[in-house]
Amino acid sequence: MKCALDIEARDVEELFINIDPIQAGGRLTPDAMKSAIAYGDGYSVCDHCLSPFRLDYIKKPPIAQFHADLAEWLNMDEVRVVPGARRGFQAIASTYLEKGDPALLTSLAHYTEFIAIEEAGGVAREIPMDADHHITPDAAAAKIEEAEREFKRRPSLLFIDHVDYQYGNIHDAKGIARVAHQYDIPVLLNGAYSVGIMEVDGKQLGVDFVVGSGHKSMAAPAPSGLVATTSEHAERVFRTTRSRGDVTGRMFGIKEVEMMGCTLMGVTIIGMMASFPHVRERVKHWEREVAHSQTVVDALLSIEGTRVLSDYPRRHTLTRIDTRGSFDRVAQSHKKRGYFLSTDLKKRGIVGVIPGSTKVWKFNTYGLSKGQIRHLADAFVDIAQEYGIPVG
Amino acid sequence: MKCALDIEARDVEELFINIDPIQAGGRLTPDAMKSAIAYGDGYSVCDHCLSPFRLDYIKKPPIAQFHADLAEWLNMDEVRVVPGARRGFQAIASTYLEKGDPALLTSLAHYTEFIAIEEAGGVAREIPMDADHHITPDAAAAKIEEAEREFKRRPSLLFIDHVDYQYGNIHDAKGIARVAHQYDIPVLLNGAYSVGIMEVDGKQLGVDFVVGSGHKSMAAPAPSGLVATTSEHAERVFRTTRSRGDVTGRMFGIKEVEMMGCTLMGVTIIGMMASFPHVRERVKHWEREVAHSQTVVDALLSIEGTRVLSDYPRRHTLTRIDTRGSFDRVAQSHKKRGYFLSTDLKKRGIVGVIPGSTKVWKFNTYGLSKGQIRHLADAFVDIAQEYGIPVG
Repeated sequence: MKCALDIEARDVEELFINIDPIQAGGRLTPDAMKSAIAYGDGYSVCDHCLSPFRLDYIKKPPIAQFHADLAEWLNMDEVRVVPGARRGFQAIASTYLEKGDPALLTSLAHYTEFIAIEEAGGVAREIPMDADHHITPDAAAAKIEEAEREFKRRPSLLFIDHVDYQYGNIHDAKGIARVAHQYDIPVLLNGAYSVGIMEVDGKQLGVDFVVGSGHKSMAAPAPSGLVATTSEHAERVFRTTRSRGDVTGRMFGIKEVEMMGCTLMGVTIIGMMASFPHVRERVKHWEREVAHSQTVVDALLSIEGTRVLSDYPRRHTLTRIDTRGSFDRVAQSHKKRGYFLSTDLKKRGIVGVIPGSTKVWKFNTYGLSKGQIRHLADAFVDIAQEYGIPVG
Repeated sequence: MKCALDIEARDVEELFINIDPIQAGGRLTPDAMKSAIAYGDGYSVCDHCLSPFRLDYIKKPPIAQFHADLAEWLNMDEVRVVPGARRGFQAIASTYLEKGDPALLTSLAHYTEFIAIEEAGGVAREIPMDADHHITPDAAAAKIEEAEREFKRRPSLLFIDHVDYQYGNIHDAKGIARVAHQYDIPVLLNGAYSVGIMEVDGKQLGVDFVVGSGHKSMAAPAPSGLVATTSEHAERVFRTTRSRGDVTGRMFGIKEVEMMGCTLMGVTIIGMMASFPHVRERVKHWEREVAHSQTVVDALLSIEGTRVLSDYPRRHTLTRIDTRGSFDRVAQSHKKRGYFLSTDLKKRGIVGVIPGSTKVWKFNTYGLSKGQIRHLADAFVDIAQEYGIPVG
């Protein structure tokens, strides 16, 4: 079925249980879907934009209230929406980094953090992870000292992934922020895998910036995200333009430089807003999601030769699994090679594992129902048994 | 009717003729609507993202083909999609401007061009317009010389609005590009009011960059847009990351720095793609749109005391009109003051004129049917007659 001339309609979420690691937290709520239809046009939210003409001041639809609600929910002072978490990183990096300035991130940092630093002219340095794939405050302190020696000045910014995209491990953002602040380094929390699925309290963590992703974890259309900060930093990050036309004398008032003026319009902001009441509710049920994840991981671990590379017991729904000693052994002699696993999962109504992967791969159980979790756990065991892998 | 908990469904486009100046070219096509539903989830287009993992390489849905088609359509060599035209300006400004570098734009430039220059650390200078509200090649040459004297170096970049947002006048981009190139200054064409509604041939105009807006003129959801360039500039603007993890040794291959890696996903890119066949067709019928605009302007001019501030005869559908000598006289003594006009228009099923405006205001007739154009033209005359303004 086509949804446009040469575009096949997507029906993955309707027909399958989808455990794709990046898609789980971004699936739209029915309210976001309905709102996307009503506000599909780009400037649809601008019907009642009044002076001083800025997105986050619009009252109808209640965009201004949404901004206030977001700040309160994250326990931060000011929030802006942005076209994806990466544009939040960019805004902060561009504000805090001058050419050649060092900035820290971690050995588990997402590539968009590197690019934000590079785009701002900064130089990225990685805080190493420990043997358990964790970033510790001690490692952060050591790297700050090392960078200070290398660059003859302190790093201007430190990025910490609240939950990293590789292992789905939760890192000690609070401890790292405390250390960074001893060196007066502002801290950006990358909440792409936490804001919108887990409760996040910015002040409690003691970070200076919280960046979230609408399409990764807030059930919102892409590209969407948010940057939250404290009153200490808000004026600098959200500084308004000082441009003035030398001929016309024009000035542009309250448009913010790093936001490039207005940011999200239409379906992206409305989708975030429509999903927000559901998102605010769902983060309270995080433990249930983690328990679901644990059920599936335990089923996988019951298959002989399988290891979990993420923290165990699980504390997040994104998991990195090592099936080199189980499914990959089947792949060695299967006529479909590594593709047998995704094929056999698909036969059972499951998608989202990269076709061909049987060595080290990731999956995300976020948002699945209890019944779907059971089916998923059983499917892995079932496939193992079909190929004679012992299940304990 | 609500589309979500606290969001009233928007029904402006269903119930009214909308002549809002910024909304006309962005209304979604039915195909974009349907595709938005099918691809509402943010990472929906990433189901079949294969190595080397970049948005513009995805073949299913046909995103790679769309990029090639866009480049051919604009007669440029390389295209990327971006979250709105302003993010295109930002990418170019960030690439070409170092701190303190002068950049030229015009007295009719959109504020986002100023902000892009400011964000990159550059200094904006305006090319003056002439008495007819046009930017001429001569004025561009004079300003280049002036800036060169002021900054002791040539401007690093020149922005020209193909069609300006204030008057809807078409400017001599070709002549200005020719002049700028005599000084080796690259030229960015802001096509927010042309790409997607008029035919634009980048090579014929001789510009180095064409920036378009999806939600302003390509019937696509927000935020969306494009940056097109020539093979001469592509490598620099679309340079790939050189970041390397100092601890992990990680590299990020073909991710482009100014694009922040992947750009549009889900509904924004799919909406652009779904509307594209219609957009490609509709630009061929630009003369009909201009004739429609002319009909409405002529009706307004038949109202005594009314002047058109844009070029006349009209060459675009966005028009700036001066009704200080007509409707504003009514406003002086009307109990609703200036609000009478928008109220009386709304009674006739017309919205999009800023409530309260009776002095100088703008409207856009793009996309209206012949019948709607007739109704709109008659409505203005009808209102004038109702208040005893002579109609000639």
